[in-house]
Amino acid sequence: MKDQSDPATTQGALADLRALLGDDHVLTGSDTDRFARDWTGKWRADPLAVVRPAGTAQVAQVVKIAARADLAIVPVGGNTGLVGGTANTGALMVSLERMTAIRDLRPQAGVMVVEAGVILADIHAAAEAHDLMFPLTFGARGSARVGGFLSTNAGGSNVVRYGPTRGLVLGLEVVLADGRILDLMSELRKDNSGLDLRDLFIGGEGTLGIITAAVLRLSPKPRHHAAALVAVRDLPASLALLRRLQAASDGAVEAFEYMPRSYMVELAKHRPDLRQPFALHDHAVMIDMGGLSRPLIETLEEALSDAMDAGEVLDAMIAQNDAQRQHIWDMREAAAEITFTRLPIVDNDVALPLDRVEAFIDDMHARLTAIDPDADTLIVSHLGDGNVHLTVYPTDDKQLETIREMVEDVTVTLGGSISAEHGIGLSKLTTMTRRKDPVALDVMRAIKTALDPDNRMNPGKVIPER
Amino acid sequence: MKDQSDPATTQGALADLRALLGDDHVLTGSDTDRFARDWTGKWRADPLAVVRPAGTAQVAQVVKIAARADLAIVPVGGNTGLVGGTANTGALMVSLERMTAIRDLRPQAGVMVVEAGVILADIHAAAEAHDLMFPLTFGARGSARVGGFLSTNAGGSNVVRYGPTRGLVLGLEVVLADGRILDLMSELRKDNSGLDLRDLFIGGEGTLGIITAAVLRLSPKPRHHAAALVAVRDLPASLALLRRLQAASDGAVEAFEYMPRSYMVELAKHRPDLRQPFALHDHAVMIDMGGLSRPLIETLEEALSDAMDAGEVLDAMIAQNDAQRQHIWDMREAAAEITFTRLPIVDNDVALPLDRVEAFIDDMHARLTAIDPDADTLIVSHLGDGNVHLTVYPTDDKQLETIREMVEDVTVTLGGSISAEHGIGLSKLTTMTRRKDPVALDVMRAIKTALDPDNRMNPGKVIPER
Repeated sequence: MKDQSDPATTQGALADLRALLGDDHVLTGSDTDRFARDWTGKWRADPLAVVRPAGTAQVAQVVKIAARADLAIVPVGGNTGLVGGTANTGALMVSLERMTAIRDLRPQAGVMVVEAGVILADIHAAAEAHDLMFPLTFGARGSARVGGFLSTNAGGSNVVRYGPTRGLVLGLEVVLADGRILDLMSELRKDNSGLDLRDLFIGGEGTLGIITAAVLRLSPKPRHHAAALVAVRDLPASLALLRRLQAASDGAVEAFEYMPRSYMVELAKHRPDLRQPFALHDHAVMIDMGGLSRPLIETLEEALSDAMDAGEVLDAMIAQNDAQRQHIWDMREAAAEITFTRLPIVDNDVALPLDRVEAFIDDMHARLTAIDPDADTLIVSHLGDGNVHLTVYPTDDKQLETIREMVEDVTVTLGGSISAEHGIGLSKLTTMTRRKDPVALDVMRAIKTALDPDNRMNPGKVIPER
Repeated sequence: MKDQSDPATTQGALADLRALLGDDHVLTGSDTDRFARDWTGKWRADPLAVVRPAGTAQVAQVVKIAARADLAIVPVGGNTGLVGGTANTGALMVSLERMTAIRDLRPQAGVMVVEAGVILADIHAAAEAHDLMFPLTFGARGSARVGGFLSTNAGGSNVVRYGPTRGLVLGLEVVLADGRILDLMSELRKDNSGLDLRDLFIGGEGTLGIITAAVLRLSPKPRHHAAALVAVRDLPASLALLRRLQAASDGAVEAFEYMPRSYMVELAKHRPDLRQPFALHDHAVMIDMGGLSRPLIETLEEALSDAMDAGEVLDAMIAQNDAQRQHIWDMREAAAEITFTRLPIVDNDVALPLDRVEAFIDDMHARLTAIDPDADTLIVSHLGDGNVHLTVYPTDDKQLETIREMVEDVTVTLGGSISAEHGIGLSKLTTMTRRKDPVALDVMRAIKTALDPDNRMNPGKVIPER
């Protein structure tokens, strides 16, 4: 792919795109604004145009037109990503927002077939109408779309029970860099027919192709919930409480979110409407459990009581109704908005083995004190997955890179990952170069070249140049 | 890779291998017999030699020596595969049987780090010593090794609860075709650091590299079990019973295995020692449920009683102790041995959407009657996964291919997969050509070429030539 197509070729491509899609669906100039800026405020796009195909066949045609004009292609979903995955200059952005059909929903088979533009909240609603659920959920569910949350293998709060997003997807349809349509639309629990291509595109951030449709696996919707906000003695006590709850409920814990003092203080400051049920403690977790066959309130009460006797739990508020449960969730889901209230920040999305989360936090704080003693930190964690969102607010711009490297050091030393669920995009490219196994990077480059020889699909993202 | 290396080069390579590994670990001639024949009797290997490296570094050296001499490389584990995945003529077979170290087991993190030669039953025992389990299990667990069951993404009976094998693996170490070691040894629940390479090698059947070690995810070991053999009215009644059990137990069903009349008749014939608890019915299922927090016998009894009232269940025997539970499992696990008691056979390992399993069996029988009215069939199914093992015994060798194509037709028409859990190997190459999306085959070829440009790693398997 060239850095710059010649103007005549580019204008010809835009004309072809207008002929294919209609003028209303080839946006340029200020019409592209809502795709250009992501809500973190850290990343911008300045695309040649944003096109809005109505179906898979049109996506394939769009890719072919872009290839003839040698244009870079950047797919965009709900634009709720956090890592600059859609930032670009001069690319053709392909929005999937018109592809919102639920092609099929078969309750007996437990599958839903969706186009890439369907919004996550609409998937939730469609499943619930059949007493089923699609478990993936996170704060941006009202905006995030299938293509985006699959391309980023987005995580969220339910992974502790339902596993990562890859495991919730049975089939995939992808438009490749040459405009061919790859049909992996399996509806099957087991399918060993050759190399697993699906999981390359899930989490591929659009670098290997454009996801246009997917088969999602549905689960029975829990009929009973039990939620609580709990003050705990320390991190090991939190993990002991998690094991206690899992053993007492056969793994019914749907969310187990760690919210230490740093988070609760910021929450009180920015969201005074979200009243906190007990005094500030150093460590708190929010818990939600879901059951099909039995109410879990008693199980939760008993486990908390035992944990209190063991000195692990210091205080607790158990939700007595749906409104209180929602209140506890709101406290957790305010995290993204709180994180980005001030800049500059070093925002980290790391994962650790469960037994090393405490060491990570301790080591990181010790080393941060040495670098920038007055820096603030904010931590919130999907603790059941070992996934820590750590934000550092340095006192000085010049410390950004030093702090970033320090967090990487601590993470990698403890066997952690420098990206747990947000992906790489542009924001973690240098981190990838520094921290990922160089052989793994070479294999990624080889696959990228094999599937996208012209480096047309979301170029410059995920895989750092050699 | 050439079809035939020149003799001097080959002898030089063998000398290098002996110098590297010692004479005892470079087997030739009749010493290779136990690797040459698989237990189905359908496939044979006639390797140049079988080498037995002691660790990952030696595997890497072996691959480099083979590359210099332009030898094909075929990895072999416990040799329990069913699809000819290790069959070859003149290749260098790499046995992982000396790499049996459990490198690490951290109960608090729920991870076990194993070398590729560890036997599945030994993994089970090591986990159980810590009240944990590695859920994957199947009849050949006393022989199957890590490298083999990961390379084939082997399925088994617990997938209905614990998901497919890919989801049970957190990290992987692989020796690539150029002898480099790829380190993907993550211990993390969430890891979005670039393209997902792990799932290419899992199920890759050794065509992209040699798996040398893995990080396995462990689950709490159930303390209570409830097992039964149940006669059911028909297939829809079986699926209704499964939903009933899942709703009553919050998804505690660990195995739900369909064993119709054709299977029970063969079982009575070949395993008269396995006494059948009630008279022959057209449809039976075996059930095993596992619970951490509560005994499940009452739940099972109530669900069966309700299902009997609804006319779905006709008879049932609930295991009253471990011996009876084991007896029920033995009835199911005799399947592989019963299947291969006579030849020729058309053995199919298909997966269907759950709501189409009955249509598959009905359509298949109707079309088989038209082709070969006296052909016998044997069916046993991991019904909870839609995975049907269908064996056809034609009256005439000449019908083999016609029957194979017929089964493929019915499977694909219903949205099924022509390989659910056994893989492709050599046995399903023509099926792949006929039935897999041609774009998917091209993408597989592109990845194979990118990672193994000399076509050295288990050549001729999984991916059919164009």
